[in-house]
Amino acid sequence: MRAVDLIRKKRDSREHSREEIDFLISGYTRGEIPDYQMAAWLMATWIRGLSRSELASLTEAMLYSGEVLDLSQIPGKKVDKHSTGGVGDKTSLILAPIVAAGGLTVPMISGRGLGHTGGTLDKLESIPGFNVNLSLDEFYSVLRECGMGLIGQTAEIAPADKKIYALRDATSTVENIGLICASIMSKKLAEGIDALVLDVKTGSGAFMKREEDSVRLAELMVETGKRMGKKVVALITDMNQPLGRTAGHSNEVIECIEVLNGRGPADLVQLSIELSGWMFFLCDHTKSVDDGRLLAEKMIVTGQAKEKFKEGIRLQGGDERVVDDPQLLPQARSHGDVRSPSAGFITATNCEQLGTALATLGGGREKKEDAIDHAVGLEFHKRIGDHVEKGEPLATIHYNSGAKLAEAEALIADSYEIGEAAPSENPLIRRILGA
Amino acid sequence: MRAVDLIRKKRDSREHSREEIDFLISGYTRGEIPDYQMAAWLMATWIRGLSRSELASLTEAMLYSGEVLDLSQIPGKKVDKHSTGGVGDKTSLILAPIVAAGGLTVPMISGRGLGHTGGTLDKLESIPGFNVNLSLDEFYSVLRECGMGLIGQTAEIAPADKKIYALRDATSTVENIGLICASIMSKKLAEGIDALVLDVKTGSGAFMKREEDSVRLAELMVETGKRMGKKVVALITDMNQPLGRTAGHSNEVIECIEVLNGRGPADLVQLSIELSGWMFFLCDHTKSVDDGRLLAEKMIVTGQAKEKFKEGIRLQGGDERVVDDPQLLPQARSHGDVRSPSAGFITATNCEQLGTALATLGGGREKKEDAIDHAVGLEFHKRIGDHVEKGEPLATIHYNSGAKLAEAEALIADSYEIGEAAPSENPLIRRILGA
Repeated sequence: MRAVDLIRKKRDSREHSREEIDFLISGYTRGEIPDYQMAAWLMATWIRGLSRSELASLTEAMLYSGEVLDLSQIPGKKVDKHSTGGVGDKTSLILAPIVAAGGLTVPMISGRGLGHTGGTLDKLESIPGFNVNLSLDEFYSVLRECGMGLIGQTAEIAPADKKIYALRDATSTVENIGLICASIMSKKLAEGIDALVLDVKTGSGAFMKREEDSVRLAELMVETGKRMGKKVVALITDMNQPLGRTAGHSNEVIECIEVLNGRGPADLVQLSIELSGWMFFLCDHTKSVDDGRLLAEKMIVTGQAKEKFKEGIRLQGGDERVVDDPQLLPQARSHGDVRSPSAGFITATNCEQLGTALATLGGGREKKEDAIDHAVGLEFHKRIGDHVEKGEPLATIHYNSGAKLAEAEALIADSYEIGEAAPSENPLIRRILGA
Repeated sequence: MRAVDLIRKKRDSREHSREEIDFLISGYTRGEIPDYQMAAWLMATWIRGLSRSELASLTEAMLYSGEVLDLSQIPGKKVDKHSTGGVGDKTSLILAPIVAAGGLTVPMISGRGLGHTGGTLDKLESIPGFNVNLSLDEFYSVLRECGMGLIGQTAEIAPADKKIYALRDATSTVENIGLICASIMSKKLAEGIDALVLDVKTGSGAFMKREEDSVRLAELMVETGKRMGKKVVALITDMNQPLGRTAGHSNEVIECIEVLNGRGPADLVQLSIELSGWMFFLCDHTKSVDDGRLLAEKMIVTGQAKEKFKEGIRLQGGDERVVDDPQLLPQARSHGDVRSPSAGFITATNCEQLGTALATLGGGREKKEDAIDHAVGLEFHKRIGDHVEKGEPLATIHYNSGAKLAEAEALIADSYEIGEAAPSENPLIRRILGA
């Protein structure tokens, strides 16, 4: 078998066998197939697509390119949630303590922010001392002790995905639902979980702007996970505006603590409860999703989720005092408002552009190597449908350097569409697939 | 400008500007754009195609990635021929001396054989001492002295093409008429010629099996050359069977000498006269193509072409005595016949497979690094339309090692289709474009 022939086959829209996909993925992971051949294959695959059977083979080849966590020593069910990413999407930090407090184990292997989206690992690192780079043994031990753990992709987990993702990023072969599905599912299935709840974002702040694309990706992921014997459900959720009232790192952690304290913005609370409810239900931990939601609410009301969050932070080396005293988190030196240029109703936001504005201030990265300023952030005062007066603040910018402030302000001001009539309401949770 | 954005643009079928193509080609040639990004761009380009304007930009960017020969010190017109390659295609060795003897300068920068096709450089190297690796200064001096010179692509000539071609070969992005056109024309236009005759092969032994593909490639090349101010004509010629009676290196040189001696097989003579006639005519060296053909015939009949061939060989360090004594060329140790399994008419040949049979014997290469046995070869006794008796020889194999003889024999036997009726005749010269 030769890589050059397999590239030709995909180029000519012919279907690969499982053996061919294994040859490509294992050869590339071992360094026997060079980057340039994989790049050509990825572009051919981006354009020609993958069949269901090819996708299954690809996901498994990437999954088994590394270790699959063995959590059998830890009693009870293991469950995770994965979001396709957006602006202000901070639910992982809320769900993990709720679901762990409720009695399940949540082994979360998370990512970093890229482009306009934030990443769970970056948010956690705004907590002084928090270590996302645990060894697998340390991860097992944290999970065993408190039921939740949040780490980055280690060298052992799906190394093929790590290598291929970096190459896709450099060769404009990222946005393809087959490749996205294989990348996500190979990592998530490597966690050794029983069930997975997928939060597939749709709208102006999501990677998938059109709902039908989000639905196709969700269907593929659900199918792939079920084929591998996992319980999987996908929620298609709105990302036409930031989730919650904040974007940034410190201030998103603060918002999560608010939710765990029984406060927090309605949309963030609703989605957190919904996702937790499904996580409980998929593991047969509650009889229904309704019961799951009730259990999630109970974990908040009783303070158990908050205590679990503190425990999780402590076990990963972080300063748990931030939960009671958020002032210990990094603070930006200055802040300023972006005011509405006219009166009317907010009819839409360019949510991706709001994420880009945050990145411009140093609160995001263009390339993987870029450093992040955890203190900078955005506070959103108006949501779609809200009325705004001329000169009323739309958002507050928390910044450390004035260097790119004007650029960020312009991006934000330009992100809000203001009209004369309130738009019709868009539900936060659009569809549930695989239930 | 970033390569990753240009890859995305081509992936999404959008058209590149001249500046974008320049950025890609010069960046890749200088090593600033890595192989994997160029590989992804090449695959996107292979699938999405190139517009006429992109093709012109690409050809020029590749042409000006290196030196364009300045032959202004040499008086008179400069002309070359390029063939897209086939089995037994040896006309360069005949045309160069005919046209140089007729008074024009022929600066031929040729290639090597790959896969089932032979290459001019390899054929020349079967002449003891012949040096195809002249420096450009040596090349100028040979051209000035005798009007013909045959060398390989130097580091100075279209370095972008050299680098891109190697990458295309490894990434299954070779067979795309835009990329082929840019590759051929950038090299040929770097020769500093006034006129170019293209011999675009079509049929079972050509890279382009279907005549319409050959015509499309020919049209693109003619248009590209004319846009650059050159006189260009393309002949679409038949490659459904080997050209002439031989394939291999020594024995093709011998066949060329036969033609220069006024003998040789009819098809090879006809095509050589036709191509020479066009070369003379395009340079306004004769009033018509007919006159060009007559001049070519005269160069043979008077022995001037043969003397020119000797002179050219001597000036490039080769043993010119081979022209009068072909026994001085490498000879294979053994030979054997492949006989017809049945009686009837030859209705077709799998010409590519005949070329592969030669390569199997060591007379071709799979990879660029492979060595070639110049002595092995095939002699073809029957052409399409000929009658053959059962057991009559179809071809004779000249070989040095019996190791792969059976494999080659089987390939050859399997290449001939024998039927009850003679097929209708297919003209050797199908179409002439750009005249």
